[in-house]
Formats: sequence, C-alpha cells, structure tokens
Amino acid sequence: MSDQNLEQLSINTIRTLAIDAVQAANSGHPGAPLGMAPMGYTLWQRFLRHNPANHRWPGRDRFVLSAGHASMLIYSLLHLTGYPKMTLQELKDFRQWDSQTPGHPEFFHTDGLDATTGPLGQGIAMTVGMAMAEAHLAARYNREGFPVFDNYTYAICGDGDLQEGVSHEAAALAGHLGLGKLIWLHDDNEVQLDTVVAKADSERMRLRFEGYGWQVLKVEDGNDVEAIAAAIEQAQAETGKPTLIQVRTVIGFGSPRAGTPKAHGEPLGDEGVAETKRALGWDHPAFTVPAEVAEHMSALERGAAQQAEWEGMMNRYRAEFPELGQEVDDLLERELPENLWEALPQWEAGSKAQATRSSSGEVINALAPLVPGLMGGSADLSGSTKTTITGEDHMQADNYAGRNVYFGVREFGMSAAANGLSLYGGLRPLVGTFMVFSDYLKPAYRLSALQMQPVTYVLTHDSVGLGEDGPTHQPVEQLAMLRAVPGAHVFRPADANETAAAWALALEYKKGPTALVLSRQNLPVLPANHDGVKRGAYVVRDAENAAVTLLATGSEVSLALDAAQALAAEGVAARVVSMPCFELFREQDRGYRREVLGTAPRVAIEAAASQPWFEWVGTEGGLVTLDRFGASAPGEVVLEKLGFSVDNVVKVAKATIA
Amino acid sequence: MSDQNLEQLSINTIRTLAIDAVQAANSGHPGAPLGMAPMGYTLWQRFLRHNPANHRWPGRDRFVLSAGHASMLIYSLLHLTGYPKMTLQELKDFRQWDSQTPGHPEFFHTDGLDATTGPLGQGIAMTVGMAMAEAHLAARYNREGFPVFDNYTYAICGDGDLQEGVSHEAAALAGHLGLGKLIWLHDDNEVQLDTVVAKADSERMRLRFEGYGWQVLKVEDGNDVEAIAAAIEQAQAETGKPTLIQVRTVIGFGSPRAGTPKAHGEPLGDEGVAETKRALGWDHPAFTVPAEVAEHMSALERGAAQQAEWEGMMNRYRAEFPELGQEVDDLLERELPENLWEALPQWEAGSKAQATRSSSGEVINALAPLVPGLMGGSADLSGSTKTTITGEDHMQADNYAGRNVYFGVREFGMSAAANGLSLYGGLRPLVGTFMVFSDYLKPAYRLSALQMQPVTYVLTHDSVGLGEDGPTHQPVEQLAMLRAVPGAHVFRPADANETAAAWALALEYKKGPTALVLSRQNLPVLPANHDGVKRGAYVVRDAENAAVTLLATGSEVSLALDAAQALAAEGVAARVVSMPCFELFREQDRGYRREVLGTAPRVAIEAAASQPWFEWVGTEGGLVTLDRFGASAPGEVVLEKLGFSVDNVVKVAKATIA
Repeated sequence: MSDQNLEQLSINTIRTLAIDAVQAANSGHPGAPLGMAPMGYTLWQRFLRHNPANHRWPGRDRFVLSAGHASMLIYSLLHLTGYPKMTLQELKDFRQWDSQTPGHPEFFHTDGLDATTGPLGQGIAMTVGMAMAEAHLAARYNREGFPVFDNYTYAICGDGDLQEGVSHEAAALAGHLGLGKLIWLHDDNEVQLDTVVAKADSERMRLRFEGYGWQVLKVEDGNDVEAIAAAIEQAQAETGKPTLIQVRTVIGFGSPRAGTPKAHGEPLGDEGVAETKRALGWDHPAFTVPAEVAEHMSALERGAAQQAEWEGMMNRYRAEFPELGQEVDDLLERELPENLWEALPQWEAGSKAQATRSSSGEVINALAPLVPGLMGGSADLSGSTKTTITGEDHMQADNYAGRNVYFGVREFGMSAAANGLSLYGGLRPLVGTFMVFSDYLKPAYRLSALQMQPVTYVLTHDSVGLGEDGPTHQPVEQLAMLRAVPGAHVFRPADANETAAAWALALEYKKGPTALVLSRQNLPVLPANHDGVKRGAYVVRDAENAAVTLLATGSEVSLALDAAQALAAEGVAARVVSMPCFELFREQDRGYRREVLGTAPRVAIEAAASQPWFEWVGTEGGLVTLDRFGASAPGEVVLEKLGFSVDNVVKVAKATIA
Repeated sequence: MSDQNLEQLSINTIRTLAIDAVQAANSGHPGAPLGMAPMGYTLWQRFLRHNPANHRWPGRDRFVLSAGHASMLIYSLLHLTGYPKMTLQELKDFRQWDSQTPGHPEFFHTDGLDATTGPLGQGIAMTVGMAMAEAHLAARYNREGFPVFDNYTYAICGDGDLQEGVSHEAAALAGHLGLGKLIWLHDDNEVQLDTVVAKADSERMRLRFEGYGWQVLKVEDGNDVEAIAAAIEQAQAETGKPTLIQVRTVIGFGSPRAGTPKAHGEPLGDEGVAETKRALGWDHPAFTVPAEVAEHMSALERGAAQQAEWEGMMNRYRAEFPELGQEVDDLLERELPENLWEALPQWEAGSKAQATRSSSGEVINALAPLVPGLMGGSADLSGSTKTTITGEDHMQADNYAGRNVYFGVREFGMSAAANGLSLYGGLRPLVGTFMVFSDYLKPAYRLSALQMQPVTYVLTHDSVGLGEDGPTHQPVEQLAMLRAVPGAHVFRPADANETAAAWALALEYKKGPTALVLSRQNLPVLPANHDGVKRGAYVVRDAENAAVTLLATGSEVSLALDAAQALAAEGVAARVVSMPCFELFREQDRGYRREVLGTAPRVAIEAAASQPWFEWVGTEGGLVTLDRFGASAPGEVVLEKLGFSVDNVVKVAKATIA
C-alpha cells in the first residue's frame, strides 16, 4: 500500500471509529471528527511527541482538543496510537457510565488528555498557560545542551472557541508574550450549531489575529495532509509569534449532512453511517481498525524512544547541575519545603491591624523563595491584590523567567491560563483580582476544580467593607457561588495569622483550587491558631455556659468578638467561632464539629449572602448577613448602615436567644 | 470670551470638578476624567441629544461611560448640563452614603445615566444591545417621515474595557450586525493600573476592529476638540458599520502624575490638586463653575426643544398610525396583555411527558404575538434551548426587524447585550444557553439584577439528567450561584404547566431578571396550579398526618411523587411540595409558608448542590442533592447512580424520620 493510501486509510479509520461510536451511543457529535480527521492525523502522526505508555512524561508535546465535543477524534487517536487503556471496547462504550470515553474529554479520567474541554474557548485559553509554562520553565532551568523544557503546545479549535470572549483574552496575551511554540489549528468549517457561521459572525480572523501579533496561515483544503504538514512546519519556524492555522474543512465530511449545521450534534443514523462509509470507500464492519493502520499509527516505539532520549538528557543534567536537577524534580513533583509552616510569617496578637490582602502579600513573598513553582499575577490589580513577588521580574517576550505576570484586565483568560500553567505540571500558579470579579473567572474556577488543579485564587476587596467603589465592586453573592463548587476550598481568613495558615493549606491541597478571600480594610491581629484553621473552624473566644454562639468569618470575626464583649457586659455569655474554611470543617469528625458549634442557639455573621449559613445555623438561627446589593460610601459607614455593627449583632443575638 | 477660550474653560471646569470631588472624598480616580474631559465635553456639547429635565425621554441619544471608574466625568457633565438633582453639593458628596454620586455610575440611582458601569467591558457590551434595540425598533415602527426610533449610541471606554473578553464578543456581534449608529471613543492613554499598557498588551486595535468589520478612526491629540468633533462626524457618516475612535489622551493630564499608572486610582493630594490647577491655569476655589461655563453648557433649553420636536412627531404618528402608536406606547411602558394568563398554553395532567425546555418554547411562541417587546435568541443553542420565535425573522444587518437573534457562541456578550436591549426601554429580551454556561454570563446576570432589568434567561439542560455530555455540561453549583443574587428570580419548574406560569411571572416581574431553569429530558405533566407557582411553593400531594415532607423542584418533583407513593406503600405518609421559586416563596406570609412546609421532618430533593436547601430543611433535614461533579452516561443512568432514584429518596426519607 502506498504511503498516501495508508494515510487515507488511517484518516478514514479515525472517521469511521468516530461515527461508529456516536452511532453506538446514539448520542454525540459526528460532524467535527469527520472534518478534523486529516489535521488530527497529520499532527499526531508527523509532529506530536508523546508516549502512549507514559502519558504524563514531562517532555511530551501538549495537545488540547479545544472543541471538546469532537471527543471521538481524540479517543480514536488515543486508541490508534496505542494508549493501553483506550481499548476498542472503550470506543464502543462511548458516553457510557464509567467508560474511558465520556462525552467530552475529561482530564484525570482518561489517560492521554492534557486538559478537560467542552466549555468553549477554555481549551485554547489553557494552551496559552501551557505554552507560558514551557517558556517560563525553559528560561529558568534549561542550560546549553540541556533542553529540559522544550515542547510545542498544540490545539485544535472550532468557530465557537474563537467566538468566546476568552479566546480574545488568551490570544491577546499569547501574542503579547510572543509564544512561538504555541500553535492553534482552526477547524474553519463555516458552520456552527444554529446556522452557518456567516449568519452569526463576520470576523476576518486573519486581521483579528494579526492584530494580536500572531502569525496566521491558511490551509485551503483540510483534507490535504501535505498542506497541513507544511503549515505546521511554517508555524514551528516562526519562533517569535504564536501561529493560527486556518484549516478550511467540511463539517460532516463524507456524510449526507456534510457542510450543514445538521451534521454538528446528532448521530447520523444507521443509513447515514452507511452512506458516509460508502462515500469514504469504506467497506468494513463497525469499529474496524485495519491491521496496517494499527501498525502505521502506533506511537509506542517512537514515543518510548523520545522519552528515553529525554530521560537520558535529564540524567546528564542532574549529574552536571545537581541542585538544579533536584529543584526540577521537586518542582515536577510539587514537593513543598519541610519547613513550610515554620516559614510562615507570624504576627503577635494585638499587633498593628492589617488588611488580609497585605498579610497575603507578605506570605507570598516569604514563601516564594521556598516554593520555586509559585508564580503568577493579577488582572491589572497587583497593587491592590498584593500578588507581586518582589525582586522577581515580570514575564515578557524577552524575559520568560519572570515569575510575575501582567495578565492585563483579563480575569477569565488569566484563570484559564493558570489552569494551563498548572496542567503543564509542577507550577503553582496564583492569580488575583477583586472578589466581585470572581464572576468573570467562574468558568475557569470550575475547570480548576473539575480538573483537580491546585490554582490559588487571591480574591481581595471581599465585602461591602471595601467602601466607596460601591455596588458594582462590592461582592455579595460570590462567597455562596464559590463555596458551592465541588472540590474547591474557600478560605475567608479573619486576620493575618489565619491568612498565613490558609496560604500553607492552599499549597498543601493538591487536588483542587483554593480561593483566598481577603479584606481591603485593616483587621485586628488575633492569636495564631494554625490548627484551628486546618480544621476549618475553631473557637476563638469561649464562654462558660454560652447562651449563644456567634459564627463568623473574615472581617466579621473581630466584630463578633466585640459583640461578644458587649453581650457579656449585658450578662449574656457568648462563644465566638471563626470558620475560615467550610470545606475543611465539614471533613472533621462529628465530635469536633459538635464541640466547636456547641449547643447554644447560633448566629451567623458574614457580610455576604446568607445562603451558605443555614447549614450551620439552621432554620431558627440568627443571621447578620447581606441579601441586598451594597452602596457607595466609606467602608465603615457601609458596614454600619447594613447591620455589621456591634449594636446590631447584639440585637440579633438577643432575638435569637429569646 | 472667544468660543475657543470658553471651550477650554468648560473642559477645565469638568477637570477641576473631578479632581476636587476625588480630593474631597479622598477616594476615586482622578486620572481618567482629566484625560477624557475634552472628548466628554465635545460629545455632550456638540452631539448628544438629551434633556436634563426628562432624563428617560425615549428619543434621546444613549451614552455609556464604560470606564465607570471615571464617574466624576459624567457627574460633572450631568451637573454642568443641568440635571436638577445633580447639584454642586452632590459633587461635593462624591462617594458618600446616599449621595447621587456613587463611586461608579449606578443606573436607577442617578438621573441621566443609561447604564451601571464599573465591571469592565460590560458598558460597551451594553451599548451594542442599545444600538440593536434602536435599529430593531426603528425597523419595526419607523415610517416614512416618522423617525420614532432614531438615535445614536455612544460609549467612552478605556484600555481595560477592550482587554476584557466581552469586548470581543460585543464588538464582533456589532460588526456582524453593521450597527452604524454605534460609536465608541477609546480613551487611548497607554496606561493601565499596574503598568503601561505596552507591558500587558501589544494589540494593534485597528487591525482587530477592522477584523470585526468596524470603521476605525484616530484622533492624535485628545485635547483637540475640533479633531474629536470631526471624527464623531465621520463616525456618523458611516452608516453601515460601527465606529471605534481611538483618541490619544494623557491620563492625569495636567497633574504631576500625568502619563503614569500612579494617576489612575488615587487622589492627587492637596498639593497635587494645586499643581494641576496651576498647570491648567485655573485660579478659583474648589468646586467653582464659572458663570459663562454654566450658561454655555446648560442643555436644558436645547434638550427641551429636541424632546418637544420628537413629541410633536410622535403625536402626528399616533394620529396617522393609531394602532402602531398604541403599540409603541404600550411597548415603551412594558404593558402586558390583560389576558396574559389565559393566553398561556395549558396541558392536561397526565398528557404526554415533555421537556420543560420544549414547554418553554411553546409558551414563547404563544406569547410572542401578544408581547411585541419579546425578542432575543441564544448563544448558538437555539435548537436545544427552544428559544426561537417561529415565523419571525432573524435580525441581520439587512433586516433589523427580526425578533430572533443569532448571538453566536457568546454567552456573556449576549447577556450584556440583553441588558442593553432592556435598558434602551420597552423591549423584553430573552436569552438562552445551557444552564452550566450560566457561569459564562454571570457578570451580566448580576448587572441585570443591579440595574433591575427584566431580562429572561432561558437556561436549559438543567442537571446531570442531561446525560451523555458529561461533567463539563452538567450544572451542579449553578442553582446556588443564581439563587444567591439579590433581586433576581430563579424558577425551576416541575413540568409544562409550571413552566407556563413561570414565563408569565417572568414577564410580570419588571424589577429584575428571571432565570428559567429547564430540563433537557421529558417530565410528566402535573395538574396546573398557577396560584401555587405565583406563591413560589405549594403542596402537590398531601397526606394526612404526613410523617415526612418531600421538598423538590423541577425534574425531581415527579421523583418525589413516585417516592411518596412508594413510602405510602410502606405505610409512611409523605407530603410533596414543589418549590419552583424560592424568592417568591420567601415573600409569602409566615402562615402560608408554615402551612406548605408543615411540621414533619423534611427532605430536599434536587439534582444540584445542597447549599440552598438548608434554609428549608435545617441542619437535621434529609438531603437528596448533589455535591460532586456529574458523569457521562445516559441521563437516567446518571440520575440513578447519583441517588436520584425512588429507592434512595425512600431511604433518605426513612432515615430522616428515624
């Protein structure tokens, strides 16, 4: 069989596996894999460095199928290139419970994926973070003759990805940083779900991306393997700019619905599958992989050789640069220093009041020398969020070693990039913005959690207590939003010491993101109680035979303490509990939880929506919370007017007891 | 005084009012108003049609200060042009409790604002909706010689606005629709908060916007009134494209911090203010408005004349086209048909099961002829969200009369545009996407609530019951997120009849947005109980001496009914309550709430995060909820595996009683 015939046969194997699986599931997206198969084949067969036997090998290229609904493309490629768990049976079990082949690619679930995709735009945005990670780590750790970090990052994306706003944020950032090893292939099929693209979008993609500083290439025929390969080579040759390759394809190629929106999201039906196979000249039973294709496409040998070469280089690197070698190994393993907790800044109770955002800034700077993977920045609010690592550069196109990043006013793109920085392996990205703008980054926060990536979100200006900026800048419902996300940890520390502990716990938690919700205003320093923070909640002020328990977080803990004192003066004994992290508290045994919460009636005090508090105070508890938007005035005025005063807490506490 | 001197004096009055107010508040953003003052002056003095005495006059031009932190620019303009409530005292009370001058412009709080701004990118995105509204209503209602709807929509935006992803979605949509009366002035000052723009962004804005199909103009000197005016004229002359005018300005013009990030967000200090005034040649006490400026800039007379002319035309229109005139008047008042509730489709209990998204589609189509303001579309999911008004066109550049909109895969831009469509006045926009992608539009949903705009969000595929698409597409925490937003209504209807009632209530609620959270899968039809839906919750199945009360929403109401039957078979009497809208239920009197919830132990059943349910079931109630991500498999399998089965509800109910 000629090379060309073998290629065609391989491409059609990808196509028929995809439509067979969609048909078997009676659910899924046949159109995209049919059109994308040649570019998927070309990229994986001729360019992608990966080892099916060791799918997390750090030296591999990264590949993200941003158009996640085309998942059967990547599942077919994983099967054909030899990923052991991706058996033919798994393809037959597409979209079934517990299979390796969920409807959209799920990182941590299926070997060989570099990211979870499906929510459009985020796949490509994560590749920007991956390419940043490669450039950054290369700048810090590569040495002459030792390309420790040296890989390409590829994505295949669809029109929907590029319509999403996050594509703008991500592409503008990538262009600014001149990420020359980032290559996106645009499945330019002129069709989207509702209609043809021309009815929803008239963008000239070339102008737009050249405006971002990208190289833009075009492949006129998406079935032309040589043209695709030439474009990828040209993309690789441009080392100073990321490249967008517009590949003109036909959605649902070969099928009766080819080139129409109907091809997008519905199985073709038995007759449609049969007709498509006829058009492709395919005459095999369902789920057939011709032996010559299996042999041709297996990447096991090639991948093992590539990895072995890299491992050999790494061993010489470790010998030549033992300290650096150790640092790289530790970094890739996300090892933390043994003295993490001792290295935290400590503050004496009663010392000068400070905003927890400032405490966080001190902690970041204390830990940065000990945690080489710690890096990141903010969405143009570094002065406010205190996220800068002092003494370290800012990452720029001419200096990728900078551990600080000017992410620009791009909260979502920043957070998606942080997911990519983390997914790349080793880094511990932190990102910062105002708490209220967690709204903008929520989709990426969810993907941090779903992908179990330890990204730290530094969210400052955490309540109406921020004052004058007013309702648009004052979070109310955001704590409820973040606390409802499975697998994420949310801390709202009461003071400097709780902030330090929260940072240590954020670094120790490697199974998901952590949100640190921090004050703009100064807060009194309380006695340090790291163990209490580790347990999520603890008694800050006890009282014998407490008549009421005041539960609070963040800036309201000090208020609760003042209120407890006022109550005591009126003969009402009150316990105060600080609850910096609900998630950790829930994990404690029932005994500890009962001990902390006590048996007295409870009052929740938090300058935010009440929704998360009923879990702790029940239907009869007291609430000093906020179920309205804020207002513009000095912070102390706003807090006072909205009920966050000693008088009001005392009033609510007494009413709750009564 | 020469015209030119008077202009300069006026511009400097705007500037000094801004820095005096920031200084008095000791808080705010002096840099932007100093640089923007000439363009603000030019636009308002020479172009903007508005009437300070009647700030909601429908014929006015729309103006949005997207860079909301520059609020003192617009407050100064409102004062100088004669808005009665914007007294000099209000400027002195900048950022103080209950003043007319909050830190960021708040629609509904301050007369003369067309939108709330501050969350970057959304101001300009809302202007796209406003320009769509104008074009749409003009196409439907204008007649030869009767330009009922005929105004420009202007925005001033900053670099931050254009870095935000939503700027991409909005600009691409505006370019596609060829909105020729939309004009953005970009305060191109090369400085952002953290740093100079060049360190975070290397975009060539001209290419990017020409890629979107915009006209791009440049004003080299932002202090040149004539150049700014010429550019605005050129923008108006281009009727087939929106225009971006890049106005090169100096942030903090005249101040010692001019041209630096330090000028952005801090008061200048007394000395800085004095120095700035010296540089501007200003020798007056704080808050001085020279008499000639007050006279020159008052828009009262001009505005009254413009409005009178429009009113006259409208009266002739009403005479000439009585039916259309009535429709326009009703539309602008958001009048609903008297027979709204009777016009709703009704389904007999036990009739063919249907997905609530399909029921919603039927309701939309039943109401569209009766509610002329109803229009909208989805983020490329119209076939799935059933949001299309059949028999009506899709809005396109050559047909603005279409009541359907292909918003593209742009959830956030769509929702911000919907806010603009609503803010324009009269329209009742609906927007649709999958529930899980409410994450993407959350920032706009918040602004719907904060601005009290009755946008209807049709959010389908509302739980893990959607099945095969898997965790990325299965909402879990989104109900908690939406329910925590103040002022918004969230409905999760149990069946077709509840869906119809929810739609009617969405239209009746004019003080905020409504989210309709709808199933992908078919649900049995229950007996209609419109009154129950109006009250937010009601008893669906009662039982004498109920031992347990099952509270449920949406698809889980049928499950609860089946479980109640199973419990009854085991001798356990169970009441079932449907709770489609928590917000409305909270508004009921205590008596009704107690009556519905009863005194038996309670179990909450909802395929979503548990957080919102503790309010109703307390700390001891039972929970059949979901605090983990979903999985890919057929919907009924996923629901069963995750505990949404009769067996599990029965088990939890019995454990709750025990």
